[in-house]
Amino acid sequence: MIDFQTHPDRYKHWKLAVEGEVAYLTMDVDETGGLNPGYELKMNSYDLGVDIELYDAVQRLRFEHPEVHAVVLRSGKDRIFCAGANIRMLGGASHTLKVNFCKFTNETRNSIEDASAFSGQRYLCAINGTAAGGGYELALATDHIILVDDGNAAVSLPEVPLLAVLPGTGGLTRVIDKRKVRRDLADVFCTVEEGVRGQRALDWRLVDELVASSQFAEKVRERASEIARDSDRPASGPGVTLAPLAREIKEDSLRYPNLTVTLDREQRVATLTLRGPQVDPPADADGIQAEGCRFWPLALARELDDALLHLRFNELELGTLVFKSEGGLHRIVAYDDLLAVNQDHWLAREIILYWKRTLKRIDLTSRTLIAIVEPGSCFAGILAEVVFAADRSYMLDGQFEDDDRPPATIRLDDFNFGALPMSNALSRLETRFLGEPDSVQAARGLIGRDLDAATALEAGLITFAPDDIDWEDEIRILLEERGSFSPDAMVGMEANLRFPGPETMETKIFGRLTAWQNWIFQRPNAVSEKGALKLYGTGARPEFDRNRV
Amino acid sequence: MIDFQTHPDRYKHWKLAVEGEVAYLTMDVDETGGLNPGYELKMNSYDLGVDIELYDAVQRLRFEHPEVHAVVLRSGKDRIFCAGANIRMLGGASHTLKVNFCKFTNETRNSIEDASAFSGQRYLCAINGTAAGGGYELALATDHIILVDDGNAAVSLPEVPLLAVLPGTGGLTRVIDKRKVRRDLADVFCTVEEGVRGQRALDWRLVDELVASSQFAEKVRERASEIARDSDRPASGPGVTLAPLAREIKEDSLRYPNLTVTLDREQRVATLTLRGPQVDPPADADGIQAEGCRFWPLALARELDDALLHLRFNELELGTLVFKSEGGLHRIVAYDDLLAVNQDHWLAREIILYWKRTLKRIDLTSRTLIAIVEPGSCFAGILAEVVFAADRSYMLDGQFEDDDRPPATIRLDDFNFGALPMSNALSRLETRFLGEPDSVQAARGLIGRDLDAATALEAGLITFAPDDIDWEDEIRILLEERGSFSPDAMVGMEANLRFPGPETMETKIFGRLTAWQNWIFQRPNAVSEKGALKLYGTGARPEFDRNRV
Repeated sequence: MIDFQTHPDRYKHWKLAVEGEVAYLTMDVDETGGLNPGYELKMNSYDLGVDIELYDAVQRLRFEHPEVHAVVLRSGKDRIFCAGANIRMLGGASHTLKVNFCKFTNETRNSIEDASAFSGQRYLCAINGTAAGGGYELALATDHIILVDDGNAAVSLPEVPLLAVLPGTGGLTRVIDKRKVRRDLADVFCTVEEGVRGQRALDWRLVDELVASSQFAEKVRERASEIARDSDRPASGPGVTLAPLAREIKEDSLRYPNLTVTLDREQRVATLTLRGPQVDPPADADGIQAEGCRFWPLALARELDDALLHLRFNELELGTLVFKSEGGLHRIVAYDDLLAVNQDHWLAREIILYWKRTLKRIDLTSRTLIAIVEPGSCFAGILAEVVFAADRSYMLDGQFEDDDRPPATIRLDDFNFGALPMSNALSRLETRFLGEPDSVQAARGLIGRDLDAATALEAGLITFAPDDIDWEDEIRILLEERGSFSPDAMVGMEANLRFPGPETMETKIFGRLTAWQNWIFQRPNAVSEKGALKLYGTGARPEFDRNRV
Repeated sequence: MIDFQTHPDRYKHWKLAVEGEVAYLTMDVDETGGLNPGYELKMNSYDLGVDIELYDAVQRLRFEHPEVHAVVLRSGKDRIFCAGANIRMLGGASHTLKVNFCKFTNETRNSIEDASAFSGQRYLCAINGTAAGGGYELALATDHIILVDDGNAAVSLPEVPLLAVLPGTGGLTRVIDKRKVRRDLADVFCTVEEGVRGQRALDWRLVDELVASSQFAEKVRERASEIARDSDRPASGPGVTLAPLAREIKEDSLRYPNLTVTLDREQRVATLTLRGPQVDPPADADGIQAEGCRFWPLALARELDDALLHLRFNELELGTLVFKSEGGLHRIVAYDDLLAVNQDHWLAREIILYWKRTLKRIDLTSRTLIAIVEPGSCFAGILAEVVFAADRSYMLDGQFEDDDRPPATIRLDDFNFGALPMSNALSRLETRFLGEPDSVQAARGLIGRDLDAATALEAGLITFAPDDIDWEDEIRILLEERGSFSPDAMVGMEANLRFPGPETMETKIFGRLTAWQNWIFQRPNAVSEKGALKLYGTGARPEFDRNRV
């Protein structure tokens, strides 16, 4: 089982050091510490295990260190920044693992950019030597790249010439769309094995600053302090400690305090039941801080995040995720209100941003997403976003026989109208009602009302509202049918239908770049026994089918 | 050899009838008229041969029929509109042919939309029965879809449930982004084999109008006349006859009056030399009309279009296209000026729009594109767009030894600044200078000047400007190196690097949708002996690998 829970005390590959308002995240990969046998993580190359630690560090910096305003990514090795994803690891990995690995690393890079953009915690990258492939892509996720000018240090994306695959962590997109490197220069850059160094790297906008070796450490420190000055984060702590998750993993279930996941392997369905809060929210931001990681919205976000990653990596055959909820609708609204009122408080802001990322993680999970709204459910505000993230939603119209709970309702609040955008930069309701601003406006008018199935259906907020008589059959047929389709066709269809409207760097990375990479990962030129990825390091030359597709 | 030249007199599958300002393009596929053996084109299903005729008809309607203001796509078969791409044809086709076929059909659909949007020739679709898969996607390319309401007629995208592939001709994208069908309803629609009919099709915005059988023909006629009324095309002809291309195809070359293509199979390079006009342009629009398809810009566009399609389909191993030109720079500017002055004249407008589409065809050709600018070349205005379309451009700085022709220059004119946008809706220079509006502005200031290599390099208009001493080696190494890379990695890299900046429905179709489809076309769930595409029609159930990727 791949476990995404870790702690700085257990890191093998990264060192996290906080020096006042600047944190240093130093990559010093343990060659022998790979997640799987069969490869050595030489030259600061990485596998999923390295990236799990990075993700953990990025999360902890946000919650545990409000006083950190700038983060420097740097290397602990001499004259090597990072050689990128380990090639032998990739060569030996299944198609599914490669794809899942790339998606997770992409999401972590995005979470770095999210911290820089929204959290007042900006990232810098100090490249002290070679930054190749995923190493340079890591740098690309930061706001400011400083390259040592020693005649040797270079940035490169050598995947195409060396491995016959694409840079898989957003490199192509970030080079042209974020750093706005001219497309013909980008073409040159991406085909030069040894990369680009010194002045040319600066001229082509591949890096932001060039510093002589002798001044490197000092300049990095200086730049980090400068950048830290602009932050709107608090000047000092305390932060909120992210305690280990209380998690119980069994053969057919995954239980957290606020979330239960049941696994139906025969039907290939995982059902995630989100539980509403057991107590009323605290009175104010101090109360949130005092509850820390037990504060219900933060606790549930962490659990949901962990469960999604678990399902993605450890439960490959469960093609459908069913989302349910149980709890008091009005208590959830009270939590949302508390967060909304305190959205400028660093911790409330972090929690809202974490929900934004976690909901994006749902959008980007390539499983069918079904939301089921039944009596006893509590899809309100932030939680209602789960319904709008789903490919389809079913809401029972009325009550079940022999169940005297009142009919299900859903509630909208301000969080459904902008604070939790999808990767396409629209809210889920704007995406849902693309080209129908009136429908979005009408939904806004429903804020604060308890919406029963008929009202929700009329407003276009749900897909279907069967009654008690049809309910069981409809859900059964839906799940059976979905389970009978080709998983690949589902992946492709959902990846297209979920993201109408505008595109952003993120949707380009997950839509365009990832799709091409997935294609290449299936092609013999890369992955057959005579493909470049398999033969790398053996000295043998790959054999290519020369047909252009 | 697949030949893209045809004529209405030779159509097997379509009938083109012009009735005043409305043309009827009737699909009546000859079952036995497939391009290859092994399948019958039942139920108005199509193969590449059917689409070649459609493309020809769309082109001729624009040039030969200025008096046609509305085009009705309809079926010649009873209760069947079109069953989409023939599945046995797809099942038997190579990966490369499938992908090339989808791209061409997509481009033809886009050319229909282009006619509706820019040419005053709007398309309607009259669906008299079943419109499945590519049949409905054809309808989606039109402005107005009329569905007969006979309790039987339906629109559907059954690819996912039936074949385990995606609708390959823009269907997913057009459903959500053009017709703005709500994403959850789109999910339902795309998984229901039998599709959606009647009122539900209208409610879900899948069609624009529902008409009873008894009134169908009349209503279609009425609607077409109404739409035709808005056009700014001339009320009457004559048009310009598109005479057969004078083309000579040999083992290693392809010769047209204004274009020579030489094929170096060993190096896997095709060199396209575009020739400037031999005579000065006529004085005015009447002169253009009088020259007709001999008018140089139109003649060259047709030849280039044909050559690109020939290379794509018949020369799969030639991975690099080198673009050269020869002729008088200033004469080309004179042709550009004539077109610019007359851009509101229907024929000049058609020629400019045809260049726009042909340049997009270059952008979308998945071969490495290199522009070579040498003494004697004539890359000015519209032709200079070829240089900006290239992945890289090389311009000789100075003269060759023993060659007294003056150093090469390039010229910009207004056509480089907006009239010929790429699929991303930006001009090629805006794309090149993404995020650098000042550089675009500076380039605008160079309009009308002869730009030598040093000036062009300084202005960022070309990639490299080697001198005589380095020239030969640089070009040789470039072509050798490019030829040594994995063709798949090149395809993926170029597809990403060529389209920075904003996305449009077109870039989504070619970037996101096509990439996912290519991936699926490689997956055993679709294409193995037990895959859905292979087993379709045999009664056997496909076997799926259940892993979600």
